[in-house]
Amino acid sequence: MGEHTVTSFDEDLEQIDRLIRDMGDLAGAMTHDATRALLKSDNALAQRVISDDTIMDAKQRDLDEKAITLIGKRQPMAQDLRAVVGGIRMASDLERIGDLAKNIAKRVGAVGDSATPRSLTHSIDAMAQMVIVQVNSVVERYVERQPDALTKLRDEDEKIDIHYTSVFRELLTYMMEDPRNITACTHLLFCAKNLERIGDHVTNIAENAYYVLTGEQLPVQRPKLDETQMTMSAQ
Amino acid sequence: MGEHTVTSFDEDLEQIDRLIRDMGDLAGAMTHDATRALLKSDNALAQRVISDDTIMDAKQRDLDEKAITLIGKRQPMAQDLRAVVGGIRMASDLERIGDLAKNIAKRVGAVGDSATPRSLTHSIDAMAQMVIVQVNSVVERYVERQPDALTKLRDEDEKIDIHYTSVFRELLTYMMEDPRNITACTHLLFCAKNLERIGDHVTNIAENAYYVLTGEQLPVQRPKLDETQMTMSAQ
Repeated sequence: MGEHTVTSFDEDLEQIDRLIRDMGDLAGAMTHDATRALLKSDNALAQRVISDDTIMDAKQRDLDEKAITLIGKRQPMAQDLRAVVGGIRMASDLERIGDLAKNIAKRVGAVGDSATPRSLTHSIDAMAQMVIVQVNSVVERYVERQPDALTKLRDEDEKIDIHYTSVFRELLTYMMEDPRNITACTHLLFCAKNLERIGDHVTNIAENAYYVLTGEQLPVQRPKLDETQMTMSAQ
Repeated sequence: MGEHTVTSFDEDLEQIDRLIRDMGDLAGAMTHDATRALLKSDNALAQRVISDDTIMDAKQRDLDEKAITLIGKRQPMAQDLRAVVGGIRMASDLERIGDLAKNIAKRVGAVGDSATPRSLTHSIDAMAQMVIVQVNSVVERYVERQPDALTKLRDEDEKIDIHYTSVFRELLTYMMEDPRNITACTHLLFCAKNLERIGDHVTNIAENAYYVLTGEQLPVQRPKLDETQMTMSAQ
């Protein structure tokens, strides 16, 4: 096969889209499994998430290579170039989601099955559910070409941030109540932070997907809310 | 100016290298300033880091556009393509370093000038100094085309990880000693984690730079050490 391949540009693009969908499915599954492993102290499931991350990395390298080759081969302009570059960027955010899920999985052993209060388990679980819905939806909305749904989805991230801030407060409270909770709670704090950051990557993906589909930027985002604005005094 | 521009491919590449160097300088300065702002409770300096991040983001967009245009225009092969794609990847890691420095800066207010024990300030400062040296060196070694120095530099990251684990333990101890320390210490914990993650991005940059310069992958990295392996019992 020489320079003139039989595949069309659209077929090449579809291949990239398929990889994005695969990576999106895997990112959703990893986030789900990592949270379940954490809340059920399931070390075997945690191990699976850790090995899934290798698959995620390989898929990203595959997509990157295909995209770069495509740009070199086809020299796409305007919208086509936007789609390929957008694909590279979305893949990079999906890969980061995989990393964050893996990091949650790696903390399963350190948290252990020490008595995590039921209300805290419930809060983290609720936050995780919101995040998982977002991860699964964003790629779905992109491949189904629904830019308006992406705007709505991006705005949903605020709810995750509010939820995260409340989990953060709750964790501080448990640490203050009993120093024996501190080690486990700091690991849970990082896990909650990772979930919040997965939400941020979904926002990036929504922005890139919107740009690919419409050629326009999503309206400027609300100022980011996070726990750094908290001046909760514990003194 | 039509399709045939007067710049050579090498000049285009140099432009990208110059942007990487700029971004590297800024990443080092932001990491330095964010740490100083944190340890001196300097809110004005923290604000500067936060606004520097906008400059960093703009530089990354600039580099991305130049690189993508270059690939489309020149259709580079093999080593040249590697250099352009490597440039995009290094820029993405430098931009993430900027984000992490900004996040440290955003925590300055929440930590406040509450009595951080001197030994803790010292530990965080020592860790930050190691990280800043790494950030400044990695781009320097790349632009000076010193692949062997990059191998050594990548291996230095282990020292940062060991230092981070010890800061992590120290912070847990302060939280356990006095619940009034918990809020400030959790923010410091995130700051220390951010420094450790900046080190990870330096590792990524070293790996990409090595690949660009030699066409080969750096030998497989040691297994990552972090606080998730700790089973420090606080019960």
